[in-house]
Amino acid sequence: MIDDLLSTYRTELFDHVIPFWERHSIDHQYGGFFTCLDRDGSVYSTDKYMWLQGRAVWMFARLHNEVAQDRGWLELAQSGLDFIRRYGRTAEGRVYFSLTQDGRPIHIQRKIYSEVFFLLALTEMARATGSGKYLDEARTLFWQVYDWWQHPEKLGRPVLPGGFRGSKLADPMVFLGMIEELERLEPDPRYAQLAQQMKTIALRHIQSPRRLVLENIGTDGEFIDTPTGRLINPGHAIELAWFLIRLGQRTGDADLTQRALEVIEWSFERGWDDEFGGLYYFLDCEGHPSTHLEWSMKLWWPICEALYGLLLAWHVSGDERYLGMQRQVHDYAFSRFSDRAFGEWFGYLDRRGEPTHTLKGGEWKGFFHVPRALLYSIQLLEKHL
Amino acid sequence: MIDDLLSTYRTELFDHVIPFWERHSIDHQYGGFFTCLDRDGSVYSTDKYMWLQGRAVWMFARLHNEVAQDRGWLELAQSGLDFIRRYGRTAEGRVYFSLTQDGRPIHIQRKIYSEVFFLLALTEMARATGSGKYLDEARTLFWQVYDWWQHPEKLGRPVLPGGFRGSKLADPMVFLGMIEELERLEPDPRYAQLAQQMKTIALRHIQSPRRLVLENIGTDGEFIDTPTGRLINPGHAIELAWFLIRLGQRTGDADLTQRALEVIEWSFERGWDDEFGGLYYFLDCEGHPSTHLEWSMKLWWPICEALYGLLLAWHVSGDERYLGMQRQVHDYAFSRFSDRAFGEWFGYLDRRGEPTHTLKGGEWKGFFHVPRALLYSIQLLEKHL
Repeated sequence: MIDDLLSTYRTELFDHVIPFWERHSIDHQYGGFFTCLDRDGSVYSTDKYMWLQGRAVWMFARLHNEVAQDRGWLELAQSGLDFIRRYGRTAEGRVYFSLTQDGRPIHIQRKIYSEVFFLLALTEMARATGSGKYLDEARTLFWQVYDWWQHPEKLGRPVLPGGFRGSKLADPMVFLGMIEELERLEPDPRYAQLAQQMKTIALRHIQSPRRLVLENIGTDGEFIDTPTGRLINPGHAIELAWFLIRLGQRTGDADLTQRALEVIEWSFERGWDDEFGGLYYFLDCEGHPSTHLEWSMKLWWPICEALYGLLLAWHVSGDERYLGMQRQVHDYAFSRFSDRAFGEWFGYLDRRGEPTHTLKGGEWKGFFHVPRALLYSIQLLEKHL
Repeated sequence: MIDDLLSTYRTELFDHVIPFWERHSIDHQYGGFFTCLDRDGSVYSTDKYMWLQGRAVWMFARLHNEVAQDRGWLELAQSGLDFIRRYGRTAEGRVYFSLTQDGRPIHIQRKIYSEVFFLLALTEMARATGSGKYLDEARTLFWQVYDWWQHPEKLGRPVLPGGFRGSKLADPMVFLGMIEELERLEPDPRYAQLAQQMKTIALRHIQSPRRLVLENIGTDGEFIDTPTGRLINPGHAIELAWFLIRLGQRTGDADLTQRALEVIEWSFERGWDDEFGGLYYFLDCEGHPSTHLEWSMKLWWPICEALYGLLLAWHVSGDERYLGMQRQVHDYAFSRFSDRAFGEWFGYLDRRGEPTHTLKGGEWKGFFHVPRALLYSIQLLEKHL
């Protein structure tokens, strides 16, 4: 069974996913990546989204670092990094959200995530090239991002008396992600200390008695009885869980691993659509209407998180139940999302599992979730051979 | 047939729509309106959205002004206006996007629309009460909004070299809407002049050879070959058309009416889903994938615009074909959106016409599109008795 799964994931990643992006997403003129790609890879917009540029650089560099050094992946990553470093930043060091093909800025968000994905690009490229310059840039950016996160008014977002000021689950998660990469490159006790702070924040989102993970909690960790406070995203909770399992494995924190395993089990149970399959995108934890139009759609990335997260849960626990859940996710993903005719996965299905969009990439979907889930799954399965 | 339609719309408006909002949306404690209402009217969030507060004030005041003065509608409108005037504005006169129930600001947009709907509330209340104060406030706000529209950087939105700087269809439309209300209260040649300017801008969005209306065009009216430039919204185009027909009727501009009639025909043909019925929400005019997740969903408001717009097209043209299209829209609306069990209409259906949400109101749906379409349709049908 392990052999079959490994073979399937290798074929999918190396024959159907990576080649799609190598063939269609490279801008040979200005550098960087097109991500607005239709089913067959044709480009329907040449605009460049910095979340996805940074993520693609990270992914290609990771493939270079951990899979093969002779496939040209480093050059692709370098081209993306050069594009971001040349055009992607403001005078204050912030990173735009989107640029035209030739690098003119279109939009800047009042959020830290463009910076986060640029930082991950820098760290993986520092690892690939040994460049101290990239590591220096990453370190400087890390402490800037930390400062912006603590003082969101510096991002230009007005701080209003009734505005949300609690914790968003994505924030401790991206800090844990950045720290994992930085710690690998340079030891610094401040990273470990901050990881513990972020772990504490992340754990507050986990509501054990209610068996769920809240996306947004109050400043003292309290439940907020509004649509924002009641929001849950089962795929995001599973992603959190596998972040925490990896942290638990690195730090020898068995209790953390145990809590994360529970999160995976609850989130799969609550998020799986028993009628049509797939994971709901958003739910209101008390059953009120979702304020998100797409709440019942099935998106590629929660399925990717579940595909790897459940495999990891089985790997660290030995509990075959996780493998059963993983089989459900796997069958759904490979029958609904995977597109062997043209490569890559569809991004958006309706509740019934029919594609609503032919696109393989867009403003939010690029060379990241599918190859990351497949690569991490392959690396895990290889340990079982 | 006219009798039947009129009777149906009167029953729907006066027995099933208005009572829903009177019963469930009034905040007797702080004033203003709850709009986050589930199917049965239960409140799932007490936050207050300024677009919807202004629109509800306008709607209740319009009902007072044009239907009945003894139904308590003026008091409801007054309560909403007082809430906005007391809590809804910044020191610079901008209007927040959302507030908590007790009036603490949550969010402010870098857009003019909160101000637009507050202005419409002021003008209809000036008409209801004869208050010169409300008219003065509306006039001052109108020229502020005009200034912000010309200088968007004053709203805090950075003007970036690659950013969109053309015309958004909503902008000439909201100016035409505001001017229609202001001109009724006070003659000022500047209004008529500005209406002509806005008409010219709006007409540039109409692409006669291609039989479509573009949501976004370049600074010189040119087509922009990006997802933004290719975006069409058939229900919005029909709303534009009925705005233009009303302007044409007021100003004796038969040519304008003719062009608007064409827009209605094209938009219905292009927007109607021949397989499942209803109007698509968004389309890419060249058939590329939509970047909007909800593009194929059926929303209540485009159907409302079509319900009235097609009736108006028949009324001004005498062409029975529009009545045939209106019958399709009517049948779809009353079988899919209308909820006689609890009142009001559902807001969001999937492509097949199944409700994806039980809610009757939310952040974007309030006491506005359904009652406006029904009231305008009733007033039109009454002319045919």
